[in-house]
Order: sequence, then C-alpha cells, then structure tokens
Amino acid sequence: MTLQLTLIGIGTGNPEHLTLQAIRAMNAQDLILIPHKGTGKNDLAQLRHEICAEVLTNPATRIIEFELPVRNEATQNYRKRVDDWHDEIAAIWQSAIISNGAPQNVALLVWGDPSLYDSTLRIASRLMPTPEITVIPGITSLQTLTAAHATVLNEIGAPFIVTTGRRLRDEGWPPGVDTVAVMLDAGAAFEAIAPEGIYIWWGAYVGMKEQIVIEGPLIDVAGEITKVRARARNAHGWIMDIYLLKKL
Amino acid sequence: MTLQLTLIGIGTGNPEHLTLQAIRAMNAQDLILIPHKGTGKNDLAQLRHEICAEVLTNPATRIIEFELPVRNEATQNYRKRVDDWHDEIAAIWQSAIISNGAPQNVALLVWGDPSLYDSTLRIASRLMPTPEITVIPGITSLQTLTAAHATVLNEIGAPFIVTTGRRLRDEGWPPGVDTVAVMLDAGAAFEAIAPEGIYIWWGAYVGMKEQIVIEGPLIDVAGEITKVRARARNAHGWIMDIYLLKKL
Ligand SMILES: C[S@@+](CC[C@H](N)C(=O)[O-])C[C@H]1O[C@@H](n2cnc3c(N)ncnc32)[C@H](O)[C@@H]1O
Ligand SMILES: C[S@@+](CC[C@H](N)C(=O)[O-])C[C@H]1O[C@@H](n2cnc3c(N)ncnc32)[C@H](O)[C@@H]1O
Repeated sequence: MTLQLTLIGIGTGNPEHLTLQAIRAMNAQDLILIPHKGTGKNDLAQLRHEICAEVLTNPATRIIEFELPVRNEATQNYRKRVDDWHDEIAAIWQSAIISNGAPQNVALLVWGDPSLYDSTLRIASRLMPTPEITVIPGITSLQTLTAAHATVLNEIGAPFIVTTGRRLRDEGWPPGVDTVAVMLDAGAAFEAIAPEGIYIWWGAYVGMKEQIVIEGPLIDVAGEITKVRARARNAHGWIMDIYLLKKL
Repeated sequence: MTLQLTLIGIGTGNPEHLTLQAIRAMNAQDLILIPHKGTGKNDLAQLRHEICAEVLTNPATRIIEFELPVRNEATQNYRKRVDDWHDEIAAIWQSAIISNGAPQNVALLVWGDPSLYDSTLRIASRLMPTPEITVIPGITSLQTLTAAHATVLNEIGAPFIVTTGRRLRDEGWPPGVDTVAVMLDAGAAFEAIAPEGIYIWWGAYVGMKEQIVIEGPLIDVAGEITKVRARARNAHGWIMDIYLLKKL
C-alpha cells in the first residue's frame, strides 16, 4: 500500500481561513504530523493544535508531534545546509510514520499555501518509498496582507514579482516591474531602497489576532514600520512580516 | 449608515475551496450581487448560484442578478475603455442596491482572490458615497494550478513573476527571474518564447470538474497543450487557463 501523503494549506493564523476541502482532508487522515514547537515560534505550533481541536471530528485521526531539527550552521554552503536539513526532516517523518503503525493516510499542516516559500513538498518527495502526494491549497500570507489593506496585487494588465527581503536588499528594485511583494525579510529590507515615489502596504502577524498593518508613502512610514516591527518582535519573541511595494 | 460592502473570494470553481470566513460572510449579508451570465461564460454565473445554494443558511440573504455591460470597443484607448466600463458597472451596482431597498450589508462574490487580476475593488471604490469595504481572501487559480500539479511556485530563496499572456508574447521572458506564472492568456503565448530548457505546468478550468492539466518540457508538450486548449475551448465555448514556466 502506497503511503497517501496530504499537504494541507491552513492559512497563516486565522482559523477561519481554512477551506472546506482542508477540513474534509484533515478528517480523512489516520495521522497528522505537527512540528513540536520549532524555532521559538511556539505560538505557531499552538495554533496548529487549536485548528485541529476546532475542526477534527473524526475520532480515528491521531495527532503526533515530531521534533523539528535545527539546521547545521557549520555547513558553509547554504544550499547544502538546507538540503541536509530537509533530508533530516524527511527521516524524522519516516520514523514517526513507522513508529505509529505505518498508517496509510498521513497529513502535514502547511502554513499558508504549500506552493509559496515552503519546503514541505521538497521534503515529502524525499520519502522512500515515494508516497502519493496530494496538495490542498491554503490562503497565503500575501492574500491575507492585501485583504487586510483592501488593496490589489497587480495594476491592470501589469506584472508583479514576489521576492525575498535578502534579494531586495542585495539586488535593489527588481527590473521590469512596478509592483514587488516581499517575504522572508529578516529585517526591514525596504530601508535599503530609495523611497521616493514608492508606496508600501506592510503587515505583521497577518490573519492572527496580533495583526498589525501600516500603509503609506515609503518615505513617510519606513521609520515607523521599522520601529513598530522591532517593538513587536521584542514583545512576541518572533515576527513574520510581509509587504507590497508599488512605484506609483 | 455607510454601506458595508464585502468582496468575498470564492476560489476558482471548486466549491470546497470556500473558506469558513467566506461562508460566514455570505450568511451575514442582506444582498449578494451576482453578474447575470456575462460574456458567454454561463457556467461561471451558474457556479456562483450553486455555491450560494450550498452554503447559504440565512433566509434573510437575497441574491440579486445584475446585467454585466459590455465594453465599448469603439473607445480606442484601452485604459479609457476599461475605466468607462468600470464606471458603468459601478452605476449598475448602485442602482441594484438602491432598487432593493438600499440594505446595509451587500456582498460581491469574486472569482479566485480579489487581489489577483480582478477589478471588483477598483469598481467598488467608485461607489458614492464611499462604502466601507471588507475583503475576504479566496484560493487563487495560481494555487489551484500548483496544487493540481503538486508543485511549488518558487525555488528556494528565489523570486517569481506573475504576468499576462500578452506581456509574455510582446516582451518575451521577463528579466531577472527563472520562474514565470502566466494568466489572462488569450491564446497559447508560451509558443512565442524559445522552448529550450523550459518546463511548463499548464492547467485549464482548474478546480472545476472540467479540469485539465499537462506538464512537461515546453519543447515536448507545447504542441499538445495548444491542441488540447483549442479542442476544450470549442467544446465548452470558453476557456480559462493558467501556467507556470521554469528555466530548469
Ligand atoms: C517560510 S514562508 C511561508 C509562507 C507561507 N507558505 C504562505 O503561504 O504565506 C514565511 C514568510 O511568509 C510570510 N508570512 C507567513 N505568515 C505570515 C503572517 N501571519 N504575517 C506576515 N507574514 C507572514 C513572511 O514573509 C514570512 O517570512
Ligand atoms: C480576471 S483573472 C481572475 C483571477 C482570479 N481573481 C484568481 O484569483 O485566480 C482571469 C484569469 O485567471 C486565470 N483563471 C481563473 N480561473 C481559472 C481556472 N478555473 N482555471 C484556469 N485559469 C483560471 C486565467 O488565467 C484567467 O485568464
């Protein structure tokens, strides 16, 4: 029997962002694997448990925690460091599945959507024998950001790029677009670009009860966002933020 | 009393892609406005009715159809043509709301997500007096595509661009990215680029029961997709397709 592995997008903190498909899929599982705590972001592990408690009605579905390993920072090469880490996580899933009776239907709850800056699919494809993988889309942090600001991603007929804080900082404004969405920003990369003529829609903890949003001309609000971001990060011990930049 | 206008993302054809938030919002409305038929895509108007029938439990929520005007093709300038059209739609909403007793809570059901190549927000902002607008995110066609293929949008730490078929055809592969998602393609724009080294994940009617997906090296599958696309378009009278291209 081939393992049926389902990757379920759960949105980014608002339990009401679950889709009917996600809820049905959760209730069709023998086992749901949830990372234990993780990198200081206890709130996120907690949120996954709350979501399960709210929507699971199938008494046969078991929830099992697994220990998320830390990346080996001694490995110099970034890609190798990530690859090794994914191998390690795959091995942990494998043994968690086996030690729980190797059931046929196993799911992972993926933050936001499994297609967007997430490695669950990459890790899943390492399992041996190869499982049959089903992906259930979830609301992304990017859509939760635009919804919170009641704004749109693209201008009419125009393209937009989605990139990382590191890229924006290192490479500046990307060529060929007037709209840039930035994720995975380790610290206010918007401060590294010339702010004239740029508008920002920023959000932290979007979808969660801690949600903070700020918008305005970058030149006016960049300082405020940096301050609010640092303060929130201190208060919570962690932060996830995302923003949309437009040349107007 | 300010009009409370809610734009509800409903996904792109799979009723199970509705979120709990969308269902709750639908049931909180006095009035839901649905376009009547529209541009030959009767199936889509029908689908909105089916979704309402499935999830509406509030007997006080009324569903009203409005006639979607056609764009005035005599207007030469594209932006002016679109602007005029949006003005006209806003006027139709306004009169539909007034002639139905000007209730306080009115919603529009938006295909996919309201932030992605959709004009509902732009039209809504034309209403006078200005309504209070709430946006509820929905699963996009892009996520439904990646889920159907069990694949990811971005490579690790890398950016991606979302653009239109017209842009890809007119401007070629966008600068600075190895991943391109293409929407609003009037006809197989992927045939306009050099296919060597490019992989495509293509889908039509994604999320709907008519869903078709094809993937492969562009050089091998471009012809097949063009054929399947033309055949499906003939069979249904309309098509919506979307694809992801990667330089591997
Ligand atoms: C590893 S990626 C995961 C993205 C996720 N798969 C999605 O669909 O949104 C993490 C990044 O997503 C963004 N993010 C995720 N959840 C967020 C939230 N609740 N608020 C703000 N940003 C969030 C941040 O940019 C963060 O650095
Ligand atoms: C006006 S845009 C609306 C997009 C929508 N707001 C979303 O979030 O997906 C229409 C384009 O979206 C894509 N699209 C929408 N629904 C689709 C579907 N069910 N299958 C394939 N493509 C779809 C196609 O590229 C189509 O030309």
